[in-house]
Amino acid sequence: MFDPVAKLKEYLRHPSVSADPAFAEGMKGAREFVGGLLSEIGLSVEYVPTKLHPVVVAKRHGDSSWPHVIIYGHYDVQPPDPLELWETPAFEPTVKDGRIYARGAADNKGPLMAHITAVGRLLEAEPNLPLRITFAIEGEEEIGSQNFKTFLQEHRDMLAGADFVFLSDTGIPNADQMVITVGLRGMACFELELSNARMDLHSGMYGGMVMNPIQGLAELCASLHTPDGRVNLPGYYGDVIDVEPWEREELKGLGLSEEAFAKFLGVEKFHVPPGYTPFEAIRFLPTLEFNGFGGGYQGEGSKTVIPTKARVKVSCRLVPNQEPEKMKAIIFKAIRERVPAGLKLKITDGHEATPYVVVPPDRSNTPADQSPVLARAFRATHKAVTEIWGRAPLYLREGGSVGLIADLKKELNLDAILLGLFLPQDNLHAPNESFDLAVMEKGITTIEEILRRTAHG
Amino acid sequence: MFDPVAKLKEYLRHPSVSADPAFAEGMKGAREFVGGLLSEIGLSVEYVPTKLHPVVVAKRHGDSSWPHVIIYGHYDVQPPDPLELWETPAFEPTVKDGRIYARGAADNKGPLMAHITAVGRLLEAEPNLPLRITFAIEGEEEIGSQNFKTFLQEHRDMLAGADFVFLSDTGIPNADQMVITVGLRGMACFELELSNARMDLHSGMYGGMVMNPIQGLAELCASLHTPDGRVNLPGYYGDVIDVEPWEREELKGLGLSEEAFAKFLGVEKFHVPPGYTPFEAIRFLPTLEFNGFGGGYQGEGSKTVIPTKARVKVSCRLVPNQEPEKMKAIIFKAIRERVPAGLKLKITDGHEATPYVVVPPDRSNTPADQSPVLARAFRATHKAVTEIWGRAPLYLREGGSVGLIADLKKELNLDAILLGLFLPQDNLHAPNESFDLAVMEKGITTIEEILRRTAHG
Repeated sequence: MFDPVAKLKEYLRHPSVSADPAFAEGMKGAREFVGGLLSEIGLSVEYVPTKLHPVVVAKRHGDSSWPHVIIYGHYDVQPPDPLELWETPAFEPTVKDGRIYARGAADNKGPLMAHITAVGRLLEAEPNLPLRITFAIEGEEEIGSQNFKTFLQEHRDMLAGADFVFLSDTGIPNADQMVITVGLRGMACFELELSNARMDLHSGMYGGMVMNPIQGLAELCASLHTPDGRVNLPGYYGDVIDVEPWEREELKGLGLSEEAFAKFLGVEKFHVPPGYTPFEAIRFLPTLEFNGFGGGYQGEGSKTVIPTKARVKVSCRLVPNQEPEKMKAIIFKAIRERVPAGLKLKITDGHEATPYVVVPPDRSNTPADQSPVLARAFRATHKAVTEIWGRAPLYLREGGSVGLIADLKKELNLDAILLGLFLPQDNLHAPNESFDLAVMEKGITTIEEILRRTAHG
Repeated sequence: MFDPVAKLKEYLRHPSVSADPAFAEGMKGAREFVGGLLSEIGLSVEYVPTKLHPVVVAKRHGDSSWPHVIIYGHYDVQPPDPLELWETPAFEPTVKDGRIYARGAADNKGPLMAHITAVGRLLEAEPNLPLRITFAIEGEEEIGSQNFKTFLQEHRDMLAGADFVFLSDTGIPNADQMVITVGLRGMACFELELSNARMDLHSGMYGGMVMNPIQGLAELCASLHTPDGRVNLPGYYGDVIDVEPWEREELKGLGLSEEAFAKFLGVEKFHVPPGYTPFEAIRFLPTLEFNGFGGGYQGEGSKTVIPTKARVKVSCRLVPNQEPEKMKAIIFKAIRERVPAGLKLKITDGHEATPYVVVPPDRSNTPADQSPVLARAFRATHKAVTEIWGRAPLYLREGGSVGLIADLKKELNLDAILLGLFLPQDNLHAPNESFDLAVMEKGITTIEEILRRTAHG
């Protein structure tokens, strides 16, 4: 078997920035490198074209009675800018103090290397392992996975009959505590613009006769929350699932201190609806957040103008079972009703993601119809982690959104086991991204053990 | 006597942009040109230094029993940008269809030329005219007149004993209707910033635990007006003077149609507190206006961030007798009380101007202690305008702010007669500024007649 660190170094040399056409060579290099590696461990590899970057699909076929796992990863990386802040070049991987530094080291080349290595070692040790494996490795995760969704729709046959998805593209709080992410918030983005007069108006000559679009938009925005921090829209919470007592218990296992966290963020106090801690609120409740507000003169000094328009960018984080389409209908209806008289409203619809949740087996609310193989894989994960990490994993919902997980659920009805492998200090999406090689090695062993136990039941 | 059009052409060739040090030569040229012209008509001229551009002071001395008028003007102009939109060069004055085109033609070189010419003609016709005249012509009107205020404070002696101020730096609705501006709104500018966490936060990881500064600022802004359009601050209207019935009558004389005006502005409906027409509201009521609001991501697409701060620029137009200092205290107190819990407020104080009003004689509420010379000048103005323009002038307060008028009142206790001379189509502060030469000639005759009648009583 190959040395995963040496291979990761080679892999990281390919500058696979999906966002920039100038990196087409790097994309091709990374794609073919990962395909080559999957061939090397005995899988049959196919490059499936999409509108932009092909998906690498690699299969270990087998008896249809064997469990079938899809291992997801992505070979694309974030742009490396700002380059001047890198201490070593972004695409010349450097090992220092047990970490490997390069763009993509943690997101997602290191964790994917752990999965490939684990499968390689496992198949070398047990050539007859009763497990079907399909790697599906996309090249557009960093730009929204739109074509991966299309791939899922157009190539159902390639992934048909799988039992669950397995991946490592989430984090852990420290090198000793594994976290299995069991829920993600969804998203509904849009932009609002209110306008009035056809041109900017002099605030002396016209101030007092017309509604200022900034004022109108501020009033509209102010109507969208209650003083206690909830979203103030009829029906907004109707589809929100209840938080199970075990979820709150699990969260306590993270050992977070509100006081220390507030200090870290530099906030005087948290702003959370009643009945939730801050750490619960970001996981279990939906939001309606203003990401940007712009109108009128924002330069130095003053310009006494009543602007012709004002705009606000909004993103709503959604929780299970809020459907983005339904939520947008609720939001847009209320907003249309609340536009101050005389102002003109323009809504620009943006992207969305469905929220996701899976319940680990043996929890009070585990669905009766949960796939036995998924349940088996979850139990295998629990045991493997407990043995190798010396303590049980935590099962947590997270506040972020990963659209492709919901897409896999929606298109193929597959749940996912999200095994966290990166650390807070890994600098994802930032200069000097790195990946902890000890965590990688522990991850390889863990993944190997999870797959072995899942195969043997 | 010289030809005012030829002289105006010469005057306009000097690019006297006060805002830009690159135009120092043009400032000097315009200043010395206007000083030379005042010498030519027999006045003693002095250039009084300030921290930036000197004030031209020109005097016709006389018996202390004679009325004493200060004629105000400014020799600086707005920057000519954007140059590419000028049909003829900004500093190569061009006469076409009875108008002279150049930067400063209407603001304020043409109107000032009318005053100088009128005084020249008058003194030529009546060398023994019993009238003391002091021209005070500043070079910083377009950049806020800060040093003119200092000039007034430091050189009271130069202007002492004057009876009133006379100037033309306001507009008229059309070439047939004179307007005497008898009131101006004041101003109180400031900026508010609300901040929370020490860095921008990911709206997935942190959304729902912290108050978003955009939301907090929107809520704060939304609290500052009532639904019916009034400013919602305790004591805000306490010092507002009553509107006199004659003021409302006078305004009707402008013959403005709300429907046509709304169409011109492109607004569906006006937004005016009860009891006022739109044209009344902009003159007689104070405002609190948001001139610019900025926070978070305002570029293309979306960036799901909770910004660290949000800012809003505010300008309040004030009406007599609202004192800017007192009003700011009222505003800041209420704002401090309304900051959403946990957010940090920063107030940046900005410039201010005192509101101004003068009551023409014989109005129901004319102050009993009004200066007899001012009353005489007002009556002279009324008669001269009525004869020369074929109809009486309108006496209107305006919504804009001209700080130096209030400064003259405050520092020297002088009221002003503001004789409008520019038309809506003159393009002040814009490309292709121009001035109507027929209005100028009519203005010269009117000014001459006003000064003659004021001198003779």
